[in-house]
Order: sequence, then C-alpha cells, then structure tokens
Amino acid sequence: MFVDTHKVRNFCETLFQGYGFSQDESKIITDVLLRADLYGIESHGIHRLVRYHDEITSGQVDVKAKPEIVHETGISACMEANKAMGQLAGVQAMNLAIKKARISGCGMVTVRNSNHYGIASYYTEMAAAEDLAGVCMTNTEAICVPTFGSQAMTGTNALALAMPAQPFVFSYDASTTVVPRGKLEVYRKNGQPLPDNWALDANGKPCTDAAVVVDNIIAKAGGGIAPLGGMGTLNGGHKGYGLSIIVDLFSAVFSGGLTSNYVNRKPAHTGICHYFMAFDYGIFGDKTEIKNGMSKFLQELRDSKKAEGQTRIYTHGERETELMRERTDGQIPVNEKTLEEMKNIAKKLKLSESALL
Amino acid sequence: MFVDTHKVRNFCETLFQGYGFSQDESKIITDVLLRADLYGIESHGIHRLVRYHDEITSGQVDVKAKPEIVHETGISACMEANKAMGQLAGVQAMNLAIKKARISGCGMVTVRNSNHYGIASYYTEMAAAEDLAGVCMTNTEAICVPTFGSQAMTGTNALALAMPAQPFVFSYDASTTVVPRGKLEVYRKNGQPLPDNWALDANGKPCTDAAVVVDNIIAKAGGGIAPLGGMGTLNGGHKGYGLSIIVDLFSAVFSGGLTSNYVNRKPAHTGICHYFMAFDYGIFGDKTEIKNGMSKFLQELRDSKKAEGQTRIYTHGERETELMRERTDGQIPVNEKTLEEMKNIAKKLKLSESALL
Repeated sequence: MFVDTHKVRNFCETLFQGYGFSQDESKIITDVLLRADLYGIESHGIHRLVRYHDEITSGQVDVKAKPEIVHETGISACMEANKAMGQLAGVQAMNLAIKKARISGCGMVTVRNSNHYGIASYYTEMAAAEDLAGVCMTNTEAICVPTFGSQAMTGTNALALAMPAQPFVFSYDASTTVVPRGKLEVYRKNGQPLPDNWALDANGKPCTDAAVVVDNIIAKAGGGIAPLGGMGTLNGGHKGYGLSIIVDLFSAVFSGGLTSNYVNRKPAHTGICHYFMAFDYGIFGDKTEIKNGMSKFLQELRDSKKAEGQTRIYTHGERETELMRERTDGQIPVNEKTLEEMKNIAKKLKLSESALL
Repeated sequence: MFVDTHKVRNFCETLFQGYGFSQDESKIITDVLLRADLYGIESHGIHRLVRYHDEITSGQVDVKAKPEIVHETGISACMEANKAMGQLAGVQAMNLAIKKARISGCGMVTVRNSNHYGIASYYTEMAAAEDLAGVCMTNTEAICVPTFGSQAMTGTNALALAMPAQPFVFSYDASTTVVPRGKLEVYRKNGQPLPDNWALDANGKPCTDAAVVVDNIIAKAGGGIAPLGGMGTLNGGHKGYGLSIIVDLFSAVFSGGLTSNYVNRKPAHTGICHYFMAFDYGIFGDKTEIKNGMSKFLQELRDSKKAEGQTRIYTHGERETELMRERTDGQIPVNEKTLEEMKNIAKKLKLSESALL
C-alpha cells in the first residue's frame, strides 16, 4: 500500500522526538531514513524503524550522545561518536569533511563507535549538492566470508561515491558482498533456493538453502555470504574480499575503532565505524570542463548499444533520481507489516493519535 | 624455463637504452616491468616486451616525451604525459603525490595522455615504502560491457591500494572486470570453453567461446568481458560496472583525458590515463597504533577458519611478497616464446651479443 510521504515524514519526526531526540535531530534522522524509501531502497528505510526502536531502547544507541573530535588536521579528523545514532554522527562528520574540502580542497573524517547510519549515498550526495565529490564507507557486523574461509569476518561493507553531473549526480552505493543479507531473507520468505555462489554453510561449502545460511548468521555458527565475485577465485571473489578489507581499513582501522569481526559482539554496543571524504574536484582543473566531461561519459554509457532484449542501460543514481522525483511530494510504498510495526511503536511511546499516520 | 633475474634486468636496461631512453629511465622502466615477474604476474612483465617494442616503434610511446604539470595545488596536480612511457609518467606522478603527502598530508595526481604503465601495485607500494597509504587507478582500451549492454565501454580499469602493515604491506591490485583479457587468451590457447558469466558476444548474449570473444574485441565488433559480478545484476555485475566508471572518473575525467571508450582509437596514440594518491595515515591518529591495528586485522583474517579442503587464507600482497623474496636474487620463469621474442628484439636493435641473455 502507498502512504503520503509528508505524513510518513511527520510521523517519523514525532517518533524520534518521543525517544528524546531534539526536533532538529529527529528531522535529520528522518531525512536520511526516508531518502531510502524515496530511492526505492526499502531495506534501509522505514522498514528499519523497528530495529532502530530495539537499538535505542536496548542502549546500543545513546540518545544523549555527543560525538567528539579526538584528532584533527586541516584535511582530516577522527570522530568518537560515543554510540550516537549513526545518522547524526554521519551528517556531522560529512559536514565537517565538506567544510575542510571548502578550505583545503579535501576533507576526510573517520568515525568510530557509531551505529547503523542508513544509506551511504545520503552522505556522498551531501558533498555533491555542494559541487564536491563525496566518498563514504561503513563497516557492519561480520557477514562476509573471506576467500577460502568458512567464517564471516567482514561486513556488508558498503562503498559509496557521488560526483556531480548533468542531468543528475553519478551516485554509486553498493555493498562489497555479492548480495546484502536482506536478499537472503527474501529468498527464505519465498521458499526459493539461493542462486549458486551467493552463500556458504558453516563448513565453507556452497549452500543454496537460505534458511540454513540466515540461521547460521544469526547464531554466529559459521558460514555467511560470499564477497562480490562469489566463492573462490574463478569469478574474482578475492577482489570483493579485498574491497571489503579496504572498507574496514578506512572506517575501522583508520579511526581506531572495531573491525567488522568485533562489531555487535558486546551487549548494548555495536561499535560500527564509518569513513567520509569530500573533495573539490577543481583541484585537478576547470570544474565546468570536468563536470561536462563526466556528464558526456555517462551519457555515452547510457546511449551505448543494448544487449538483445534490453531497452535501457542505466548509470548509477539514475533510477533513484527518477523515483525520488515522483515520491517526494507523492506517496511511498509501505509494507503492511511495516505499517503495523510503526503503529505498535507509536503506542509504546504513547504518542497522541495525531502523530499516527 | 628459469633465467637469472639479474641477467634479465641487465638485458632489459640495455634494451630500453637501445630505444633512446636514458640509463636512469631504462632502470625505472625495467624495475616496474620486472616487479611483475618477481610477483608472479607474468602478463604484466617481460611477456609484454614485444608489445612495448611495437608501441615504441609505432610512435604510440614518445621516447623523448617530457611530462608536464598543467594544474597544481598544495594537495594535487594534473600531469600531461605527452605520450611518455607509462612507467616514467607513473613514477614521476607518484613521487609528486608522495612529496605533497609529506607536506600537506595528502597528494593526488591525475595523468592524461600516457601509456600502459605495468602493474598498479608498483606505484601504491612506492607510497607504502614511505610509510604512507597509496591509491592508484588506470583506464585502458574498452573491453568491459556495461550491465544490459552489448558494447565494451570501459577498460580493465584496475584499482590498487597499499597500506603499510606487518609482516608485509597490504597490497590490493585488481581489475574491475570479472577477469582480464589475458585469461581469455589462455582459455583460447587451451581450447577450453569459458566459464559462464565471463564474456558476451556481439549481441550482448553470454558466450563461452573464447575465440569469438577475443576476435570480436580485437576487431572492435561488439561484446567483451563482463564487469566484476558478471552479466546482469543477479550476482552484482552492476557493482563492477560502477567501479569501472569510478576508475575512469578518477583517471580520465579528472585529468581531462580520454575515457576508456576513446583509448586506442587513433593511430600512434593510446591516450591512457592514470590516478595516483598518497596520504599520511597519521592524519587520523597515532601511526603506530593504526599500523598495528591493520596488522592485527590482517592476521585475524589469515587465522580465521578455513573452508573444508582449504589450508590457507591469504591477504592481498602476501603471495607476491613470498615470491619476490625467492626471485629477487634468484631466477624468474620465462616462457620459451617470450625468450625468443626478446632475442628477436635485441637483434632488431642491433645490440651486441653481451647484452643478450
């Protein structure tokens, strides 16, 4: 079913204030969360409200946390998030990276001890909106099995990059695993076997039974998801494995925080780490020429010859831009179960009827 | 067969002087080239001498070229390579990035109008040897087909990153395609069918006939290699496609040079572009703590549980370090055909007998 976007926005803003976040903070968290629904990335939108509820009420997220800068140079900073809501640490860190990029050409901010921050492209596009290039990474609980391994050691470890272009920003945002965990849950729900090469059982053998893999992940019993490129090295799985290490390096190692294999291992503490970078691409030459060069290249990709049976080649960010245009002042799809969850949460927080959808 | 490494080095240094490179330049080119053989990456080592011979004698490479800096800030530069040998432009550009990183914490150098530069990890490890982190990218002739496309638009587009660690540097260096072209040529030579999901015919359909694919690539008749993640989106091919765009953005778009789809399209001109970055990871905190954190994480990966039937989990750069240790003052494997080619080139350059192996 579809619900008016403004109503959902008001609902979420009221909800987060119900937990004790300020009005400004609630607006920021909601904006990041809703962007996922506007972009059609439902796994990272209001679908997660129930998980955020658990994280806030269990103490994994500290509502009163104030992130602190613990190390700083003209082009960099390291932030101790003190268990803040990931969206609040994220927006603050990317704003700092942007400020440094404006002054020094480049700003890089690492964040430790944060929480889930929603979609990475929200932050990279903050940079793009200021006519800068943006990069963003985050680690997560270990779910990805190294090449030749049987134990999850790195997270979904998404990597995002945004670069201004016309008619829309190039915006890449993808996990370094072959698929995120949510995909496995959909296959399980539908009783479908997983495609080969997606997942491994506790012995590190290929496994197409989604229930087995998801249950093992939850129980930390071994196995997990293959890196981008799949299992072994035949299709380049060692490349995806390496990319997931790179994401942990930038987010966790550079910040002095927890690598994926330690995330979510202690009660009331996730320890998730992020990395944010903004840079003025004018450090390489004339900005208009560079931006036009990117726009032209992307257009050539979209205009290139289609495979038999295909009518369209996309560039990254295109589909999301189109959907958001429709949905911002329109409606977003809300799963019936999610709507039920939202109403339950509202009741638990004793919100007045007017705050409900 | 195996040949003494020092003999091969002397041979190559003499050879490059035979083309008109100075002694210093010949040493640099040889060092980059041989590093590939020392690392066991034969496709990028002396195996390529015959291709370099053609590129130099056809004028694609200008032996007398002097790369120029056309744009510069405290943290960045754009280099016009003027058709220099890729290794010479590459070493000069990474040295400049390192110098800027020493002064400003970070240095990024884009290079346009260069040529093939050998293995990317040579340059990132130059940064690592100075206790800096290094990033490097290069575009190449288009060989990779966008998701839902049938025409190669991006190159092998390798991405490399090196980070100091103990007992050896973490060194990632991989194409953003599922495999490089050389792999297809091996399958063709052996008369083996290609694995599914590696390559596409001229209509954008899956194709397991290596001869068809390679011939189409050479004739620019359509089709090519799938991005990392394979064809379509099921296994994340759109992620590899996006990574290949990112490499073209950093190397070609930021430098104002040719994107992969224009590389090698004009006679005596490749137009290949690169990107080099060095940064002092001490901009985020205490260097010893950060480096120890990386060493610990890599050790945990190597020590993690193996898949059934596997005895070892590698981290990137490990295998290469081991091989180089054996080979530097030992021998490197040389294909008989390559040896024949080397002797032929020496004869063409009228080198004295003593220069021969």
